Amino acid sequence: MNKLFFRNDYGEGAHPQILAKLVETNLEHTCGYGLDAYSEKAAALIREKCGKPEAAVHMMIGGTSANMISLSAFMRPYEAAIAAETGHINVHETGTVEGSGHKVCIAASKDGKVLPEGVQAVVNAHTDEHMVHPRVVYISQPTEIGTVYSLDELKALREVCDRNDLILFADGARLGSALTCSEATVTLKDMAELCDAFYIGGTKNGMLFGEALVIVNKALHKDFRFMIKNRGGMIAKGRLCGLMFLTALENDGYFDWARHANAMADIIRAGMEKGGVKQFIPTTTNQVFPVITREQEKMLEEKIEFEHWGDVDEDHVAIRFVTSWATTEEDANALADIMEAL
Amino acid sequence: MNKLFFRNDYGEGAHPQILAKLVETNLEHTCGYGLDAYSEKAAALIREKCGKPEAAVHMMIGGTSANMISLSAFMRPYEAAIAAETGHINVHETGTVEGSGHKVCIAASKDGKVLPEGVQAVVNAHTDEHMVHPRVVYISQPTEIGTVYSLDELKALREVCDRNDLILFADGARLGSALTCSEATVTLKDMAELCDAFYIGGTKNGMLFGEALVIVNKALHKDFRFMIKNRGGMIAKGRLCGLMFLTALENDGYFDWARHANAMADIIRAGMEKGGVKQFIPTTTNQVFPVITREQEKMLEEKIEFEHWGDVDEDHVAIRFVTSWATTEEDANALADIMEAL
Amino acid sequence: MNKLFFRNDYGEGAHPQILAKLVETNLEHTCGYGLDAYSEKAAALIREKCGKPEAAVHMMIGGTSANMISLSAFMRPYEAAIAAETGHINVHETGTVEGSGHKVCIAASKDGKVLPEGVQAVVNAHTDEHMVHPRVVYISQPTEIGTVYSLDELKALREVCDRNDLILFADGARLGSALTCSEATVTLKDMAELCDAFYIGGTKNGMLFGEALVIVNKALHKDFRFMIKNRGGMIAKGRLCGLMFLTALENDGYFDWARHANAMADIIRAGMEKGGVKQFIPTTTNQVFPVITREQEKMLEEKIEFEHWGDVDEDHVAIRFVTSWATTEEDANALADIMEAL
Amino acid sequence: MNKLFFRNDYGEGAHPQILAKLVETNLEHTCGYGLDAYSEKAAALIREKCGKPEAAVHMMIGGTSANMISLSAFMRPYEAAIAAETGHINVHETGTVEGSGHKVCIAASKDGKVLPEGVQAVVNAHTDEHMVHPRVVYISQPTEIGTVYSLDELKALREVCDRNDLILFADGARLGSALTCSEATVTLKDMAELCDAFYIGGTKNGMLFGEALVIVNKALHKDFRFMIKNRGGMIAKGRLCGLMFLTALENDGYFDWARHANAMADIIRAGMEKGGVKQFIPTTTNQVFPVITREQEKMLEEKIEFEHWGDVDEDHVAIRFVTSWATTEEDANALADIMEAL
Repeated sequence: MNKLFFRNDYGEGAHPQILAKLVETNLEHTCGYGLDAYSEKAAALIREKCGKPEAAVHMMIGGTSANMISLSAFMRPYEAAIAAETGHINVHETGTVEGSGHKVCIAASKDGKVLPEGVQAVVNAHTDEHMVHPRVVYISQPTEIGTVYSLDELKALREVCDRNDLILFADGARLGSALTCSEATVTLKDMAELCDAFYIGGTKNGMLFGEALVIVNKALHKDFRFMIKNRGGMIAKGRLCGLMFLTALENDGYFDWARHANAMADIIRAGMEKGGVKQFIPTTTNQVFPVITREQEKMLEEKIEFEHWGDVDEDHVAIRFVTSWATTEEDANALADIMEAL
Repeated sequence: MNKLFFRNDYGEGAHPQILAKLVETNLEHTCGYGLDAYSEKAAALIREKCGKPEAAVHMMIGGTSANMISLSAFMRPYEAAIAAETGHINVHETGTVEGSGHKVCIAASKDGKVLPEGVQAVVNAHTDEHMVHPRVVYISQPTEIGTVYSLDELKALREVCDRNDLILFADGARLGSALTCSEATVTLKDMAELCDAFYIGGTKNGMLFGEALVIVNKALHKDFRFMIKNRGGMIAKGRLCGLMFLTALENDGYFDWARHANAMADIIRAGMEKGGVKQFIPTTTNQVFPVITREQEKMLEEKIEFEHWGDVDEDHVAIRFVTSWATTEEDANALADIMEAL
Repeated sequence: MNKLFFRNDYGEGAHPQILAKLVETNLEHTCGYGLDAYSEKAAALIREKCGKPEAAVHMMIGGTSANMISLSAFMRPYEAAIAAETGHINVHETGTVEGSGHKVCIAASKDGKVLPEGVQAVVNAHTDEHMVHPRVVYISQPTEIGTVYSLDELKALREVCDRNDLILFADGARLGSALTCSEATVTLKDMAELCDAFYIGGTKNGMLFGEALVIVNKALHKDFRFMIKNRGGMIAKGRLCGLMFLTALENDGYFDWARHANAMADIIRAGMEKGGVKQFIPTTTNQVFPVITREQEKMLEEKIEFEHWGDVDEDHVAIRFVTSWATTEEDANALADIMEAL
Repeated sequence: MNKLFFRNDYGEGAHPQILAKLVETNLEHTCGYGLDAYSEKAAALIREKCGKPEAAVHMMIGGTSANMISLSAFMRPYEAAIAAETGHINVHETGTVEGSGHKVCIAASKDGKVLPEGVQAVVNAHTDEHMVHPRVVYISQPTEIGTVYSLDELKALREVCDRNDLILFADGARLGSALTCSEATVTLKDMAELCDAFYIGGTKNGMLFGEALVIVNKALHKDFRFMIKNRGGMIAKGRLCGLMFLTALENDGYFDWARHANAMADIIRAGMEKGGVKQFIPTTTNQVFPVITREQEKMLEEKIEFEHWGDVDEDHVAIRFVTSWATTEEDANALADIMEAL
């Protein structure tokens, strides 16, 4: 019997609608490098949905690449990013930001979310030319641990950025999940209104790959395509991203797929609650972090593919389940039953 | 009426067999980041076809990324690459190699091919620590202008590399075309035998994206996946490349598709010959460079999509036609007829 | 009346013996770039005093430059340094290490000293290619806050480095002070025996500029002069460093000057003790950190040049006094009296 | 008997007036890192002599460091410098410019001088985001081979820069020699008027080290001290440069010393002319390049320290004599006699 798959949200190919579109358009001839009509249409649609007719939209190949290229485009060599300790750029990108020359300064955070006072403290601590100059606040919406910034929290970050001439940049690798979860108070338009730049993640929400980077702040537009190419992030068949985002956004499938992922996670969370299994960090997005005993973990490993997240105490561990557009209700229910019976 | 498309070899999606495989496997769950069974099978098959059971094989997202990551993994900060003036890394990659810290030294070349004596001259000119230390010879097979290294030429480069402790690295963005053209004397096994590392290009031969990097020299293996990630070149759904290369190589479709592209170019070359249209650089691969008058160019632009290559003299220009797996015999014949009648 | 100067240990020119030597040799003709006989003699003397006849010795222009060049020579792009949160490379070098592409990971520390278990924890937390690979442990002897590693502490760090294949690198900007303070248990030979590389700081102990980098580990020797030049750290009149280190070390003036600086700080510490003024961090080297009230700080500012170090609580601040070879006993006594009377 | 020393212009210490000033001020206490009163006075004097009261002046430790830091401060990652093939940054700096991420594009040159039409050709050849974007024209005044730009030539470069939105940057490692040679038509004020930034070289004209960088273009001022520190070029005892430039410029010794060096070279050139020895490149600055036979070279090596410059033909070589503030008339005459008698 196959194990239930809750390891991640990039374990399959693409949403069938996406793949169908690629098959349908496969033999059409277009320009390369994202200058084709599909990419332009996708960009126009994104601008419209963001309510930002003058935003720059660029199709990036993946999250790490999008983060690194954006940050190195937005900063001069002595400038630094500010992130939570758990921030993806700080932990899980093998030093790409530093690799492009920039320090990542750690700001105090709560539940994976950067605190405005944490940002201010980092700014205050950097006083002269013997220290880096903090310039970009990097956040993830949702965070690496599945929590989401509320509208108020996002506005507070915008405010501390404005006060200190900082750029607010949001990693949206799982943006769909954040915008459609039960506690969501932030819309796509809010993201575009409050961030200088952010991206709409495709890889983890039904596409083969690709993130649509939206640069709202015009001061950051200049020569961005040079930066993409200079950092190795431009692919020849750029239309693929255009086609995939167009398909996902034209009928708001993008949001439906994310909503589905969240709903599947809700089923699991409900099972956990019935079974009295606690969450390490309570979430409403597509990542769930049960706290269980080591024995329970071993037992689950026989039936389920998931990730070990970390040790909680001598006896307990946190594990991670991730749902996606591809998670079936059947599988979610099966997992919920297992968790309830734990 | 649609124009005939001879602009490039990345203007369509993927070879139908490739796409079919993606559709077929779409809902399977696998590990991410290229650690899945398909990627491993593809790597094993490549090792076998190269006759190098201990080679490291990595799936890269594109040529520029593969070049930059390989060169920066192979060199220390003060070391430099040697390339032809027309070398892709020297002209068309927006300074990615320099962007990762390394100078590109220009060696004398003929017909786009680096000359061994040119390599030796660069080495001889760099004598102490006030100059960069040349370390990697970068070649393209075929070259950026469609010519191919013969087996003897490749052996001569290997020899100058051995004599000077240099690494020989081959950009194989169009490797299929080089290995299957009418004047080919180099096989895949020869590439693996003579180069320290090279890649088998997928983007320009039927895949959505992807190049299979083969690192034969074991001294260059260490921690290469760290380098891929550190430079932003690792994608979550790594299995896609594995699936695409597996499909292409299992029944040698990869070579058939390339052979087809070359054959289509041969049809065009034959038409040109009949019409007395000269080639700027005579080629046998999937790129053809007719020399025509400016008036002829204007006329062709109305019927054909192609690239202006450069000015030859006051009256003449060189243009470029590129064929691919997707070029139909009908289109090739149509273009041949046009060229014959020019 | 002039204020008493206790702001730093680089506020004057050079020790008179150093300057006399520069005057004496001024019109001699020598090779450039550190290849002259004086630089070679200085290097030989340093090797001898370190008991490491095969060590490589390089004259560096300053501490930040020495740190950055060493770390980037010792690491591959995805590798990272480990340092204390207060580490100079982490706080006061404007991101030069990151600027050369490497992350600085923070290890737990006590009194500014990196803890072996902190190093081990950083290593343990970095498990795969999605994270940087920790490679160099960066320490300062003495630390940025004036404390010193004991011989046992240094051995324990060596041990954790050996166990994890890490390089131990010591910033010795104030090494003289560490080796001659009252609690010193580490000798120059111990430094050479236990560190893979370290430097003997000149700038802060009587020279115009310059640090003598000692690379004991032969695996790190290769092409180091290329690295110095590549990173902008090689000066034409390299003999200056050679002459200065030769003068300082031939008769052990280097250690006498440092001992003097420590003795001057001891006078101040004695005055503080009599006056009941606490040290923020108790030290025996040439930096003293009194904890005083904000009012006291204002009062002192009228008579003394010093640095505000940080806030301790609502009412108290820590300030910093630094002594040097140039501090007179008269000035030290004057400051001690002031502190006693506070 | 000692050989005559004509190897370079950095083979001695400092001009005696410089050294005297360092001795005189040695025990004064000042701020570090170039924020002292001497550095400020020197900067003010330089602004005045340049006729640019709002220029930024920074003391740099050496030419390679000044070039690299300036170019990386002035450019974004995908931007490139334009230089002559013989340009110092292209040949003799171990790839520091590339090491900081930027390509050096080669423009056509004559007698070591970048041609305006060469600059234009480079600009024209770079048309889109697949290529670097040329941004800074790097020249040396005098050039690496001792020739000087005339006022008309400099104006023509300014003009091509204005036309293409390029920055004109001049390496002035030997600027004194260029401004005081017999064919000089460019003044210090002309340099400041026509260049966006340039430096007044100290290392090769009587100082221990140091170059005074003048950034005239205000758009390039921002945060430059951060850049100096970030790239490892800021030294603690920054006042040294201030003191040295102040001493050199207060009574125009800087120009007298350079004039002396040129005069000594003139003596050698006169001897060569009498002896019928040709110059490889005719110069009027402090570098002379005689063309002699291999036998003559061997013979000269026994009496003179000089550099082999390169092979001219099978029988002839070019060598280099360099004069400086430290060259005595006696030595110059002795060399002139030898050359006359060759």
